[in-house]
Amino acid sequence: MLDKRQAPAGAKSAQSAKVSGIWPPVTTPFRADLTVDFDRYIAHCRKLLADGAHGLAVLGTTSEANSLDLGERETLLERVVAAGIPGGQLLPGTGAPSIGDAARLTRHAVGLGVRGVLLLPPYYYKGVSDEGLFAFASEVIGRVGDQRLALYLYNFPQMTTLVWSPDLVGRLIKAFPDTVVGLKDSSGDVAYMETLLSRYPGFAVFPSSEALLLSAMKKGAAGCISATANTHVANIRRLYDGWQGPEAEALHKTAAAARAVVQPYGWIPAVKAILSAREGKPDWMRVRPPLVALDEKKKAELMQALAPLGG
Amino acid sequence: MLDKRQAPAGAKSAQSAKVSGIWPPVTTPFRADLTVDFDRYIAHCRKLLADGAHGLAVLGTTSEANSLDLGERETLLERVVAAGIPGGQLLPGTGAPSIGDAARLTRHAVGLGVRGVLLLPPYYYKGVSDEGLFAFASEVIGRVGDQRLALYLYNFPQMTTLVWSPDLVGRLIKAFPDTVVGLKDSSGDVAYMETLLSRYPGFAVFPSSEALLLSAMKKGAAGCISATANTHVANIRRLYDGWQGPEAEALHKTAAAARAVVQPYGWIPAVKAILSAREGKPDWMRVRPPLVALDEKKKAELMQALAPLGG
Repeated sequence: MLDKRQAPAGAKSAQSAKVSGIWPPVTTPFRADLTVDFDRYIAHCRKLLADGAHGLAVLGTTSEANSLDLGERETLLERVVAAGIPGGQLLPGTGAPSIGDAARLTRHAVGLGVRGVLLLPPYYYKGVSDEGLFAFASEVIGRVGDQRLALYLYNFPQMTTLVWSPDLVGRLIKAFPDTVVGLKDSSGDVAYMETLLSRYPGFAVFPSSEALLLSAMKKGAAGCISATANTHVANIRRLYDGWQGPEAEALHKTAAAARAVVQPYGWIPAVKAILSAREGKPDWMRVRPPLVALDEKKKAELMQALAPLGG
Repeated sequence: MLDKRQAPAGAKSAQSAKVSGIWPPVTTPFRADLTVDFDRYIAHCRKLLADGAHGLAVLGTTSEANSLDLGERETLLERVVAAGIPGGQLLPGTGAPSIGDAARLTRHAVGLGVRGVLLLPPYYYKGVSDEGLFAFASEVIGRVGDQRLALYLYNFPQMTTLVWSPDLVGRLIKAFPDTVVGLKDSSGDVAYMETLLSRYPGFAVFPSSEALLLSAMKKGAAGCISATANTHVANIRRLYDGWQGPEAEALHKTAAAARAVVQPYGWIPAVKAILSAREGKPDWMRVRPPLVALDEKKKAELMQALAPLGG
């Protein structure tokens, strides 16, 4: 079983073929003692794949990955793979503020045969130069030292205050053409995303919003990695499949409408509240500090607002 | 030897007596392969204490602690204690974005008999509420579960974008009166610091700048934890000792003048460049990515600017 998922070390394999489509950043359920509820987590992963996800961007921001210990992040990934979800459908976040911890998580993920990893910039320091970010990414890649590594830069300046600038992205692609193969852009900055798409054809760019998916696909994007793909993946998949068809605009409007309703409630608590309401599981509401769960009133409001859109 | 440093678990000991004075945030030297140069590190610690430091705020921002792996942070602290530097003179940073990692580092430090720890807020997420930060700190304290813990909040909004607001500080003091005993303020926001000093007498507040030390001492501050205490600790100690004496203004001007020269060069690379120049050790220049070392030209410029002030 493991042989099927793992490519031989040192050989580029099918797992590094271009990633595309809809990859939900899987939200992480917690028990009352704040430990990860693995059974519910695996069930959620399976449902997302059954409902149309091409793969799973586990351990991202929406997953509260940076509220998990390093060891928990490794264990979670092992549990997902042990549950039979193919490594080829996994794109975990492996960022950490230090080179060593980021390399450790990345090496571990590559060892499990994942399709690729999403790398945040080192998000403690502010006002960091492109030179420093280039050195950081280069060190991580060098320490992982595995040709199977497919690295997707994770751009989220609202959280990190740092940007993988278009020039820096180009420099990294040039230095590591078989490794630095894509980028998830959570900035919402359309001009930034379009700059990447026009400068680096073939580089796999994922906006973080289904509201941007149609226009982004027209410019060559690879798909999207969106918080609300946790709750509305079927709609987003239909848009992805139909973006060149006659229904494209209608599919876009349907997907964008649900997202617009969710946004004011805060992505992470809101996504969990929707899953809680749908499954009738109050436990789904729980988040780890410093985040705060929605209260029941807000949850009811949110579900009421989503009702005309099918929930 | 260890018995002298460690209080019996469950008993409040002298180690938690109020911290005061000058506690340099010790800068961390790296070898060519970026590993920590422990010999140089311990020598630097000893020199700081010999030159007047009351204790050492190891593993802070100036120490590049967030560029060290979690395991390296533990090892470094063990090496310092093993070198014979008393736990009572150590105030390590133990912050991490996740509750579990912050609790792990804090528990480890308390186990080594440190005087206290500096806790950053969980710095990945932005726009976090006081309620969420309170829950984060409470969880860390609860998981450490050791009455010896003396916790100093570490306020550095320029890096974290989060603030331990005066109201939140009051709530934490009230909930954990024997544990939450102080705060290091790197914000440079004098009004914020003075609010804390006036609202919470006896709470140990440390500005991060010797330029604020004299005015802060007049309002009841405990001392200071400043990057440039790595290079100018004797001057800062003289100011601390003499702040009520006739030379106070002159001592303030001397300390503030050196700091003002260093600031434009960036604290961490500049502090390392000064140590490199003074000790004739090019290796001292090295920083970990994403930071970037000063080049030789800047280093020469900096040393020339410091020369009239005694270097």
